[in-house]
Amino acid sequence: MHLSADTLNDMPHRQRVALINSLSGYKSANLLGTRSADGQENLAMVSSCFHLGADPALMGMIMRPHSVDRHSLEYLQDTGVYTLNHVHADILHAAHQSAARYPRQVSEFAATGLTPQYLPGFAAPFVAESRIQLGLNVAEIQTLAINDTVLVIGRLAHIQLPGYALGADGYVDIEKAGTVAVSGLDSYHQGRRLARLSYPKPDQPLTDMAAPADDRKPNGQDAD
Amino acid sequence: MHLSADTLNDMPHRQRVALINSLSGYKSANLLGTRSADGQENLAMVSSCFHLGADPALMGMIMRPHSVDRHSLEYLQDTGVYTLNHVHADILHAAHQSAARYPRQVSEFAATGLTPQYLPGFAAPFVAESRIQLGLNVAEIQTLAINDTVLVIGRLAHIQLPGYALGADGYVDIEKAGTVAVSGLDSYHQGRRLARLSYPKPDQPLTDMAAPADDRKPNGQDAD
Repeated sequence: MHLSADTLNDMPHRQRVALINSLSGYKSANLLGTRSADGQENLAMVSSCFHLGADPALMGMIMRPHSVDRHSLEYLQDTGVYTLNHVHADILHAAHQSAARYPRQVSEFAATGLTPQYLPGFAAPFVAESRIQLGLNVAEIQTLAINDTVLVIGRLAHIQLPGYALGADGYVDIEKAGTVAVSGLDSYHQGRRLARLSYPKPDQPLTDMAAPADDRKPNGQDAD
Repeated sequence: MHLSADTLNDMPHRQRVALINSLSGYKSANLLGTRSADGQENLAMVSSCFHLGADPALMGMIMRPHSVDRHSLEYLQDTGVYTLNHVHADILHAAHQSAARYPRQVSEFAATGLTPQYLPGFAAPFVAESRIQLGLNVAEIQTLAINDTVLVIGRLAHIQLPGYALGADGYVDIEKAGTVAVSGLDSYHQGRRLARLSYPKPDQPLTDMAAPADDRKPNGQDAD
């Protein structure tokens, strides 16, 4: 089936939005926690967080200033800090519900039954129920002229995660932590590991590092 | 377990890279297809594609110009076009292998056994084996001063997908199409649907639209 740019233009708006939102593939599911300078807490579901670099440790996220993102964006701009909290199955409904258009004076924490939690010296609220919690300092905010979305770049200041999820090699097993993925606007998925593949080199076969040692194909080698 | 920015700074480089790459959550797995002006084909695995907007239909991706991304980046800059092709389990090893540092004159298509395929009038190669294939025109390329990564923004020109994956509401069922997700640097996951949740509104309960009609909780309503 082939759809061209013209086909897209002719589609009803809602259908088009659902379609385009599905095309990038699986997306991360995070709860964005912010607090205004005068103490109003805000929580919003975001599916547009991405890795930007490890040194310095940076994450990007795209926000739509004319949507429910507007309060969050305002608060993180004012205070310079925000949190990202992985969504797992037990808090999925609450997380999705946080995207409803609540009035400014309503905290999405209270409205959805999630619990704000603070670290000393860090002004943005974490989601206590989340298993992987990140605290970030705003590093850069840029409006993309092409469609007026906003690119927020944050520098990692705090990482809180269960010890069982952190491997000796630094990999965090987000499947073990129950983190979910999003597709499209409203579909949520659990991950089931297919493989962890060794570092690829020309003319060297790949090994599945997640397989038991005896099963490692084709020759039991490990990644370097 | 709590890790601060200082803990991060003290970690060995490889561990730190694996850790930070795991933190954003599940990432999309796409094969980036490009061709140089003089006909050299290139294929590279990318895990940093994200939805940027539906009208116009835009996707973003982050590239590292000092890595294996450099050939792809050069080619898409020169020709103004590229493709993104969803990875599924059957082409997972080939897709991961495409990230090895092959010399410029080697096509990763040939090296990994994947098949380049063209649409008339569109100069970048699609991956024939992929089930969801996107053709994009370069809309904007911007170097992010904060860490010298490059943000590439593309406008959707072509979408090719199996009819069985496209729903009447525009949602593309990427789980049905077998699309995989990435976590960290090397872990690949299949999706297993938890729910499709109705459009959230204050003071309205959510419905699982993926559940059989009789099971829809709490009151069988549909999303508007």
